Amino acid sequence: MTEISNRNRTGLPVVGMIGGGQLARMTHQAAISLGQSLRVLAADPDDSAALVAADVELGSHTDLAALRAFAKGCDVVTFDHEHVPAEHIRTLAAEGVRIFPGAGAIRYTQDKRAMRERLSQLGFPVPRWASLETADLAGFGLPAIVKAVSGGYDGRGVFVVDSPDSELPDTELIVEELVPLRRELAVQVARSPFGQVAVYPVVETVQRDGICVEVLAPAPGLPEAVAAEAQRMAIRIATELDVVGLLAVELFETQDGGLLINELAMRPHNSGHWTIEGARTSQFEQHLRAVLDYPMGETHLTAPAVAMANVLGGPPAKMGVDERLHHMMAAEPGVKVHLYGKRVRPGRKIGHVTALGEDMADCRARAARAAAWLRVGEAS
Amino acid sequence: MTEISNRNRTGLPVVGMIGGGQLARMTHQAAISLGQSLRVLAADPDDSAALVAADVELGSHTDLAALRAFAKGCDVVTFDHEHVPAEHIRTLAAEGVRIFPGAGAIRYTQDKRAMRERLSQLGFPVPRWASLETADLAGFGLPAIVKAVSGGYDGRGVFVVDSPDSELPDTELIVEELVPLRRELAVQVARSPFGQVAVYPVVETVQRDGICVEVLAPAPGLPEAVAAEAQRMAIRIATELDVVGLLAVELFETQDGGLLINELAMRPHNSGHWTIEGARTSQFEQHLRAVLDYPMGETHLTAPAVAMANVLGGPPAKMGVDERLHHMMAAEPGVKVHLYGKRVRPGRKIGHVTALGEDMADCRARAARAAAWLRVGEAS
Repeated sequence: MTEISNRNRTGLPVVGMIGGGQLARMTHQAAISLGQSLRVLAADPDDSAALVAADVELGSHTDLAALRAFAKGCDVVTFDHEHVPAEHIRTLAAEGVRIFPGAGAIRYTQDKRAMRERLSQLGFPVPRWASLETADLAGFGLPAIVKAVSGGYDGRGVFVVDSPDSELPDTELIVEELVPLRRELAVQVARSPFGQVAVYPVVETVQRDGICVEVLAPAPGLPEAVAAEAQRMAIRIATELDVVGLLAVELFETQDGGLLINELAMRPHNSGHWTIEGARTSQFEQHLRAVLDYPMGETHLTAPAVAMANVLGGPPAKMGVDERLHHMMAAEPGVKVHLYGKRVRPGRKIGHVTALGEDMADCRARAARAAAWLRVGEAS
Repeated sequence: MTEISNRNRTGLPVVGMIGGGQLARMTHQAAISLGQSLRVLAADPDDSAALVAADVELGSHTDLAALRAFAKGCDVVTFDHEHVPAEHIRTLAAEGVRIFPGAGAIRYTQDKRAMRERLSQLGFPVPRWASLETADLAGFGLPAIVKAVSGGYDGRGVFVVDSPDSELPDTELIVEELVPLRRELAVQVARSPFGQVAVYPVVETVQRDGICVEVLAPAPGLPEAVAAEAQRMAIRIATELDVVGLLAVELFETQDGGLLINELAMRPHNSGHWTIEGARTSQFEQHLRAVLDYPMGETHLTAPAVAMANVLGGPPAKMGVDERLHHMMAAEPGVKVHLYGKRVRPGRKIGHVTALGEDMADCRARAARAAAWLRVGEAS
């Protein structure tokens, strides 16, 4: 049995999440079913999770004193994002805080060069890559992808470079081959401190301008052997890197049907939002089970086809979100909506929708229509 | 379009719920997906919903001033229970508060005699009944059921009487025939102010000592024509009584296969908890949609068989709920658990579990095993 130091009044543990975004918001929803109430460290009282959770502290994820004070009221601490400085995570763990994933694992999401080196050492397939200070762009082969070693997400910090004279940002960079890809895939795996793993079906992620706009579960037409290989890799990465909690592995399916590992995220991830209705255990509940060392929940699909579409903020519009929600619900009574309570900015993820059914083309069309209804600017 | 007076910062309405029990707790979970955060009027900071919601006021549901102050911050006010005095509901409505269901509807849940009279007038099948002051127990026929006109729930206020000399409580009473029944059924219907209705599949409810312990969806072996008739009755009752929000109709299936209406509840109800995972739209989301005059969501089953079992508090035990939850999750990784954060008292509903699958006998066995694991006293 896990040793638990703080318990709520019914004897259940308190999980704290650093960061108050939509991942914490949806984790709070899952925590309620488990008899808990997520404790949230939010930067701002208007953060997505801070609007809905009962137990919110305000503070910065880079402030060690704030992190320490927050951790005092928790049995286990985990993350809504990967931006907590690794040295703070190490310090808290040394002081006896149960904090997952640990600094040793999370650094591979904070440092793309370390991630590429480690995965290469372990023999995982990754795109051909080099540190930019040691590589010669022209010699590496152009066009290529240049990535900031740290700090990028949703396409930020990633550049396609097609000339050796391209101007590059003044930060640590790696260069990677531009992989001729068929599509992008992702797979979620959860791992507990004991080492139990639970892996989800492999999904297809559809990107536009570097942002994930759609996720299809299961990945349509993916050969069973390739799906099994992707799941095996995810389990092995989680185990080798000693990840506790959820790990999302983003993959390229190459034009010849092979797999290359693109990115890692160690938390619930946009590519797993479909699991809320589409899998027997949502990624949010699974993350809680994992960090608490509870037995993992079943991961199988609840319907033959599941399509998730992100709702992105649009330009200012006359029709507000409340009216759009009415229209969307009338048009698509079976589509599930998740709005994050976020102010609208063009391109910002403000929610997602999920359609479930027998036929992927139909689910995809329904989710896309619903997301289009909700793509809204600030009401003017 | 509904006229909305208070909106949250993303332009979405604020729903207030009077009462902070598990129904409010689960309604808050549903509200989060709709971009909202349920506003809760709780009697106690330790109430189930008060433990998890961000926007909680403390106050009594019988205190008009508290109700008025609470309603000021809401676009729509609704209920976790049916104990708000009808005159307060009427007063608030007269003062312009959108409050659903209205006093005219909710009185039929507060006064069993009024409910029996009205349903009889409307021609619905009900058990043979009489007011006790006008009836002669011996002449009515014994054994019979004697019920308090108001205040009873979960078997309280209901007595089986088999002698004309039985001692009866000093309160208004009705007497009803002891119906020779095959089993009990229930059906949920939601209705919006516009009058849109959405009805769920008919379920079987299994009672023990007057408390619902198990719900099976759909009701096994129920002839299609009988199920359709139960759904039609539920829709007609909701419409005739002008219910806004959810209505649960509890029914007797008689030994000759007929239907009699037993009870009404005008809120999310224990007999609808299976809808969280078992129907495309949960009763909690549907109740929010209804009171907001949003279009209703799809009500169909997400699996061929769904079994819900209540988790009742047991006698004091050495093994606490956290350890029991570990065992239950290891034994039943596909069963969904909902714990309400309530202190344990023997026989008190402290949570529920839901099993979904292809085969009802299997689902029922899994739910029963999971509920048995969780049936727990205070850790000693």
